[in-house]
Amino acid sequence: MQSSMPTRQDLLDCHTRIKPYIHRTAVLSSTAINDIAGAEIFFKCENFQRMGAFKMRGASNAILQLSDAQRTNGVVTHSSGNMAQAVSLAAHSLDIPAYIVMPENAPQVKKEAVKGYGGQITESVSTIEARQAAADALIDQYAATFIHPSNDLDVILGQGTAAMELLEEQPDLDVVAVPVGGGGLLAGTALAVHHFGKNCKTIAGEPRAADDAYLSLKAGKIIKNLKADTIADGLRTHLGDINFPIIQQYVDEIIRVEEGEIIAAMRLVWERMKIIIEPSCAVPLAAILVEKAKFAGQKIGIVITGGNVDLGKLPF
Amino acid sequence: MQSSMPTRQDLLDCHTRIKPYIHRTAVLSSTAINDIAGAEIFFKCENFQRMGAFKMRGASNAILQLSDAQRTNGVVTHSSGNMAQAVSLAAHSLDIPAYIVMPENAPQVKKEAVKGYGGQITESVSTIEARQAAADALIDQYAATFIHPSNDLDVILGQGTAAMELLEEQPDLDVVAVPVGGGGLLAGTALAVHHFGKNCKTIAGEPRAADDAYLSLKAGKIIKNLKADTIADGLRTHLGDINFPIIQQYVDEIIRVEEGEIIAAMRLVWERMKIIIEPSCAVPLAAILVEKAKFAGQKIGIVITGGNVDLGKLPF
Repeated sequence: MQSSMPTRQDLLDCHTRIKPYIHRTAVLSSTAINDIAGAEIFFKCENFQRMGAFKMRGASNAILQLSDAQRTNGVVTHSSGNMAQAVSLAAHSLDIPAYIVMPENAPQVKKEAVKGYGGQITESVSTIEARQAAADALIDQYAATFIHPSNDLDVILGQGTAAMELLEEQPDLDVVAVPVGGGGLLAGTALAVHHFGKNCKTIAGEPRAADDAYLSLKAGKIIKNLKADTIADGLRTHLGDINFPIIQQYVDEIIRVEEGEIIAAMRLVWERMKIIIEPSCAVPLAAILVEKAKFAGQKIGIVITGGNVDLGKLPF
Repeated sequence: MQSSMPTRQDLLDCHTRIKPYIHRTAVLSSTAINDIAGAEIFFKCENFQRMGAFKMRGASNAILQLSDAQRTNGVVTHSSGNMAQAVSLAAHSLDIPAYIVMPENAPQVKKEAVKGYGGQITESVSTIEARQAAADALIDQYAATFIHPSNDLDVILGQGTAAMELLEEQPDLDVVAVPVGGGGLLAGTALAVHHFGKNCKTIAGEPRAADDAYLSLKAGKIIKNLKADTIADGLRTHLGDINFPIIQQYVDEIIRVEEGEIIAAMRLVWERMKIIIEPSCAVPLAAILVEKAKFAGQKIGIVITGGNVDLGKLPF
């Protein structure tokens, strides 16, 4: 656990460090969606980020701070989704070996993407214990460095740069909204909003079917999901001891939404904005639409977290 | 038929006229697609245009040139697709009545979109004769002005502004590629490339299943499709006497592609660029990929014509 909160300068240094390795993604808006929401919404399109998700930011920041010896030995992560691709691509950009533990039941298309970015896959049973055990074995075998997908301060800072860029373009946002899963994006965003926003709040959307972050904030301690049966597959994980204190200190509210609301918000963005977003990204928009009265007339930033969806398995 | 070809100034005037009524759409590119194509491709994203397609440009240009009396009486078009929405929205922006003939079997979602933009729908049997007859009746009834979706010089000039903007951002393109259906976009693009390109060619992609433009160019006269069984639903129409001479004079080549190639190119853009494009827009990319050797190393502009797809009926 960090002894003190990251500073404004930490975020600026992080942004400078990763800039050559990431895209500065577009900020889009939609008159039709603004009309529906009764608010002015600015979407930070991390679905256009390298490998298709914001995770490229955190992965790059963590990997760029490895020593020469650590770079030689490589990095390890376990993920069935975007972090597997992000660590693979970020490591590949720097010629560093990347060992990725993926559940054996992960979609073939995601395994292919990781291989395409040069990641070396180890398959494991899909329990969190088995994945961690497989990762530990790789760490031992290669003396490689483990990069946690969300509970790592360098990852958190990297994820925060999306909101930094958004606030650079739209400095007077009233709210920045993101989804919460493992908590890395939410913690990073809250730090960025704290240091770079002007009277700006950080809120999160969370599926009611996996509302561990909502419950954790309420209880004042990390509570894990008993089950997490949500379409927002990026949000099934739980908070960690590094991101939770940041979330406790700087996040204003977590709004829970139903599965149908997530799917409707996702479809709205596909149909009106003509961009492909993952179910997870639709969660903060769903939250804004559910609490329309609260956000009426406000300027709202939403981080569109990614666009890696299986086109063969759409919910509509 | 026009007595002489439209000039550079005609295009500049048109662009100035319609600018307040259209979005200046983004130009995107994808490293992954460039690697696959072995060329550098710039996508002009008219799927982000108002009402989701380039047709907004031509419709606006035609409607903005009506006299006050004509504006009072309103406009008529027949279309099952984007032109219906474009004329409705452009007319709505100027408080002009829009009478839209749509085939009775047009998807409900498209009828709803037209109504949402304020268009007044008359349903007809879906044959071209019945649609024209219904349009003629409306013209008589309201003394309204007919706007053809593609065979109208003002529409052609409007459509050409997409390539103008693309060439403003990427002045040294070797090729601009668009799909060809009714021929309005192709004729307008060819004019823009002629007047604003530097040694730049205009090519079109066309579905082999509806290759009337390819055959027309070869025969030196307009040939109509006997059938047009293609997924590229925007390209089932045929050329007209106003756009054909422009196409004959300024278009370098029409490349025909198979249905499977169209679907694969569409999926490639969805998966790699995270943007939603209609099947029609995938046709020029499919043509570039089919003729890879010919375009190797070139700088290519592609107009992404629109993003209005029925998410419930995807080909993948």
